[in-house]
Amino acid sequence: MSGARGRGRRPGGPDTRGQILASARRSFADKGFGGTTIRAVAVDAGVDPALVHHYFGAKDDLFLAALEFPADPRVLLPTVFEPGVDGAGERLVRLFLSVWDDPHARLPLVAVVRTGLVQEAEDSLLRQGILRMVQRPLRAALPAPDADRRVQLVVSQMVGLVMTRYLLALEPLASMPAEELVAWVGPTLQRYLDGPLP
Amino acid sequence: MSGARGRGRRPGGPDTRGQILASARRSFADKGFGGTTIRAVAVDAGVDPALVHHYFGAKDDLFLAALEFPADPRVLLPTVFEPGVDGAGERLVRLFLSVWDDPHARLPLVAVVRTGLVQEAEDSLLRQGILRMVQRPLRAALPAPDADRRVQLVVSQMVGLVMTRYLLALEPLASMPAEELVAWVGPTLQRYLDGPLP
Repeated sequence: MSGARGRGRRPGGPDTRGQILASARRSFADKGFGGTTIRAVAVDAGVDPALVHHYFGAKDDLFLAALEFPADPRVLLPTVFEPGVDGAGERLVRLFLSVWDDPHARLPLVAVVRTGLVQEAEDSLLRQGILRMVQRPLRAALPAPDADRRVQLVVSQMVGLVMTRYLLALEPLASMPAEELVAWVGPTLQRYLDGPLP
Repeated sequence: MSGARGRGRRPGGPDTRGQILASARRSFADKGFGGTTIRAVAVDAGVDPALVHHYFGAKDDLFLAALEFPADPRVLLPTVFEPGVDGAGERLVRLFLSVWDDPHARLPLVAVVRTGLVQEAEDSLLRQGILRMVQRPLRAALPAPDADRRVQLVVSQMVGLVMTRYLLALEPLASMPAEELVAWVGPTLQRYLDGPLP
């Protein structure tokens, strides 16, 4: 996951944006999510921190850009709940599959998931990068008292799909048409989101 | 995952059983499940293949013994379906948790899952060892036409629980009491097992 571009400080050349992204990739890979700062990335790229902010915004944005994430969960997930929680289970699976079913789009996601499962660290890019960004908008859409456990039950089924459909590519699940999977898994998520508490 | 015991051929000493297990562990780790044969394990341990069969039975049995699996899915899973498919979802979660919630028991399982997710090989111990042994009794308990996809949907939720509750230990899911999890996830598995097709 280390950058393809130059490694020296102040490397020169006009591709400042690319230099910043390469530095960010190195930092996220080497130091984790929490260990990465905009300031350190700027120093490594030989630019002013303000320039990093200017190009990429906050650290979350830099993370998504550096790892070439195909989608921004902070933007997409709230749209699932805009029409209400009703039907959100199916919409959530459909959104999830629209990203993950694209082999090119899921490449960086697979890399982060694989690394995150091996590292077991609190600060893995999987936890602090992906999962945090996915869980926050879900949590915000649910009533407070048991939002946390409902969200994690949803996450447990989604993570299970990531493993079985994409990483392990178990058949027939890997080849199941998206809409069939929406019909199977949608009601599961719906019950986790707003079903009666046990 | 390589054995703690001696590495030489025909090492002598009375612990023939231990030598066989050490050879088996090395072979499963180095050559995968399909690449391991009773004969090669016997040669490596300096004993007759008949002795391996005598001590451990078939390759599946040797696998479970070598990796110190806490439970035999071929024996336990059919008991879930003995009273019928009705209620099997809850019984399945309860059985699953009774094994995985024991930190000592899940140790070898976690090792195999972690390795299996990194390797991505068809022949990983995760696929050919655990998943095959889990899926077969489930498949046998369900009507044929769509048993495969029903079983894999079940597996997708179970694998997701393994990841989130044990490998990532996401809170509050990791600390959720077993019976609460049975109540949440049991109906999911039940619908996958015998719910109407979408």
